[in-house]
Amino acid sequence: MTEKTGKTFSFKLITTDGAARRGEITTPHGVVRTPAFMPVGTQATVKAMYPEQVRETGADVVLGNTYHLMLRPTAERVARLGGLHTFMNWPHTILTDSGGFQVMSLAQLRKLDEDGVRFQSHIDGQKYHLTPERSVEIQGLLGSDIQMQLDECIKLPSPREEVQRAMELSLRWAERSRNQFEAMGGPGKGQGLYGIVQGGDQPDLRIRSAEELGKMPFEGYSVGGLAVGEPQDVMLSMLDITTPVMPVDKPRYLMGVGTPDDLLESVKRGIDQFDCVMPTRAGRHGLAYTRYGKVNLKNARHQDDPRPLDEASTCPASSVYSRAYLHHLVRAGEGLAGMLLTWNNIAYYQYLMQGMRDAIGAGSFEDFYSKTKEDWARGDIAAL
Amino acid sequence: MTEKTGKTFSFKLITTDGAARRGEITTPHGVVRTPAFMPVGTQATVKAMYPEQVRETGADVVLGNTYHLMLRPTAERVARLGGLHTFMNWPHTILTDSGGFQVMSLAQLRKLDEDGVRFQSHIDGQKYHLTPERSVEIQGLLGSDIQMQLDECIKLPSPREEVQRAMELSLRWAERSRNQFEAMGGPGKGQGLYGIVQGGDQPDLRIRSAEELGKMPFEGYSVGGLAVGEPQDVMLSMLDITTPVMPVDKPRYLMGVGTPDDLLESVKRGIDQFDCVMPTRAGRHGLAYTRYGKVNLKNARHQDDPRPLDEASTCPASSVYSRAYLHHLVRAGEGLAGMLLTWNNIAYYQYLMQGMRDAIGAGSFEDFYSKTKEDWARGDIAAL
Repeated sequence: MTEKTGKTFSFKLITTDGAARRGEITTPHGVVRTPAFMPVGTQATVKAMYPEQVRETGADVVLGNTYHLMLRPTAERVARLGGLHTFMNWPHTILTDSGGFQVMSLAQLRKLDEDGVRFQSHIDGQKYHLTPERSVEIQGLLGSDIQMQLDECIKLPSPREEVQRAMELSLRWAERSRNQFEAMGGPGKGQGLYGIVQGGDQPDLRIRSAEELGKMPFEGYSVGGLAVGEPQDVMLSMLDITTPVMPVDKPRYLMGVGTPDDLLESVKRGIDQFDCVMPTRAGRHGLAYTRYGKVNLKNARHQDDPRPLDEASTCPASSVYSRAYLHHLVRAGEGLAGMLLTWNNIAYYQYLMQGMRDAIGAGSFEDFYSKTKEDWARGDIAAL
Repeated sequence: MTEKTGKTFSFKLITTDGAARRGEITTPHGVVRTPAFMPVGTQATVKAMYPEQVRETGADVVLGNTYHLMLRPTAERVARLGGLHTFMNWPHTILTDSGGFQVMSLAQLRKLDEDGVRFQSHIDGQKYHLTPERSVEIQGLLGSDIQMQLDECIKLPSPREEVQRAMELSLRWAERSRNQFEAMGGPGKGQGLYGIVQGGDQPDLRIRSAEELGKMPFEGYSVGGLAVGEPQDVMLSMLDITTPVMPVDKPRYLMGVGTPDDLLESVKRGIDQFDCVMPTRAGRHGLAYTRYGKVNLKNARHQDDPRPLDEASTCPASSVYSRAYLHHLVRAGEGLAGMLLTWNNIAYYQYLMQGMRDAIGAGSFEDFYSKTKEDWARGDIAAL
C-alpha cells in the first residue's frame, strides 16, 4: 500500500525568486514539491474525493486532523491497522496537526493549563487529556510523516498579555514536543516535527517566537495563529516580519491558509506549505474556484449555460460538465455536485501551486503574480 | 459527447437456457447486453458516482426518472442543452420511465382521471398535468432511447375491481402513448417505446394485459406493478404466468426490481431488464452487496477488520479499502462511505448480471443459479 522511500525527512531549497522559494521536502512516503498546497483529509478522507483523484490533481501530501482521528477511529486502532497511509489508502506523504486547534474550536468543556488541555469529545462526551507528549504520541501512532508540536492558538484580536502568554506556553510545549518526538524515535523513522511560531498580531512576539524556535532542532517551522479573524493585510504584515527570521534551510508552513490570493501573497513572502478546508468545503456548498475567480453555481445565471467551468482545465470536473448541469446538481442537492466541485477546486488549487513553482523556477514569479491577479480581476465569463 | 450509433432500436435474442434469455438490445446510443441491470439515475445522476465509473462497472444503460426531470431542470431545458445524454455526460443508452409511478408516490394533491393525472410538485407546489401524450413528449425531449408508456401502478394488495380498472386504463393509455410516440417520430429516431403489463396479483388480468399489449407494435414490454408490497413468491408466480404470453422477440423489463435474489429468480423466468434503487440507496446507508450476501458496515464487528469486502472483486471499492476503513467512514458520516459502497454495490449487481449472461450463453444457468444461491447462503466471512 505505502510507497515508502526508505528516505529520511529532508528539505532542499532549489531556487528563490525574491522571497519566494521553490523546494522539495523528502519524507519516508515521497517527495513534496514546494510551495505545496495540502488538501485537508480531516477524518482520514479528503471529503468527497477518492484518494487516487486527489493524487491525480497533483497533491503530494494531505493533512490529517489529530483531534478527529484520536476520537474516531482512535490512533491506537489506526496503528493496529497499519497506520494512516494504509488505512486511508494514501501511500504518499501525510502531515498531521497537533489536535490543539480543533480542541479549542470543537471540543466541549475545555480546560487548558501548563500540562495540556482537558476536554470532552464533541461526539460522545468522553473525556480526554491532550498534552504535548500525547499529541506527538498520537501522531507517531498514526505514522504521520510531518508532525506538529502542540501549541495554543488564540483568536485575533486578543489582548497583548494573552497573546504573549499563549506564545510563551507554546514555546515550552515546543520543547516538550521535541523531547517526546525524539524519545519515540521519530527522527530514526525519517519523520519530521515542526515547531509553530505564535505571537498573534504583535511583531516583537512573532520575532521572539521564531527566534526561540529556531534554536530548537525542528525539521520545519509553521506559522500558526493567523487567518483567525484578522484582515489579510495584518496576516501578510506578520509574514513580512516573521519569515525573515525563520531558518532558510527549513520548510515554512502557514497553517490553515487560505484563499487563492492568500496563497499567492504568502508564497511571495517565503511560505512553502499550506493547508485549508476552503476548496473542499466550498465545493460542497456550490462554489467553484477557477482561473477567473470564484463562481457560485447556485446562481440561476448558470441554469441554461452549456459551457464548462473552464474549458482549458485538464480536470474533467472543470472541462467536461456544463455549468447548467452543475447548477442542476447543486439545486437538486445531489452528492455529485460536491464530488465534482471539490474535484474542480482541489485541481485549481494544485494548478495554482504548480504555476507558482514553475514561475519561481523560471525566475518569473512577479509576472505570474501579476498575471494571476489580472485573471482574477477579470472575473468569470459573462452569462450567456 | 454522445456515441450515436446511427442505429435503430432492435432486439436480438441470442440464446435461451430454460426460460432464461441472453440477448442484445441495440439503441441509437449503443448495445445493451441482456439480461441487464440498469442503475437508477433519478435526477440525471446515479447518486454518488461519476458516469465513467458507472460505465466501468459494466452498465450499458441507466434509467432517468421523468417525474424528477420534468420538475427540475425541466424537459425543455434538457432539450435546449442537447438532451439528457449530453447533460449528464452519459453517452450510452438511457431508459426513462413515464413519471406515473413517482407522481403517485411523491407528488402532492394527485387527481387521476381518464385523461391523465394532475398533481403538484413536491419541490415547490407548482401544478402539472401529466397525460400519456405529455409523458411521451417529455421523454422525447429528454432524448430517451427507451421510453415507457404512462400507466397506473397500484399497490398490492388491492381489490380486484381496482386492479382491473387500473389495468384497463393502462391499456387505453398504452394506445394513446403509442400514437404520440409515432406522431413525434420516435421510431424514425431509432427510439423504442415499451408497453407495460399490469394486472396486480390477478393471473387472468395479467394474461389479458399482456395479450392486449402484444397486439400493439411496441419495441419492448415491461412488467409493472410488482415489488409494490407483495411477497416475493407472489411476484414470481405472476412472472410464471406472464412471461409465457409476452412476445418472444421483444425485450422484457421488470420494473423497479430488485434484490440480487429477485434478479436471479426473474432471469430464470425470462426477464431481460431490471432497474432498482436498492444498490445505490443501500450504499448510502452503509450496506454492501457481495457474493456472500449483504454486509452492514455500520456493525462494530468490522471496526478492526483489515480485510476488504471481497478481495477477488475487480472493483477497487470492494478489494482495496478495508472493512475497518469503510466502517469508520460510515460512522463518521463521510461522503466517501456512500461513494465507495454505491460503487461496490453497482459493481456487484453488474458482476451478477455478467455471470448470468455468461451462464445462459454457456447453457449452464441452472448451475450458476445453484452456485450463486449457495454463496449467498454461506454468508459473509466470519468476524476476525
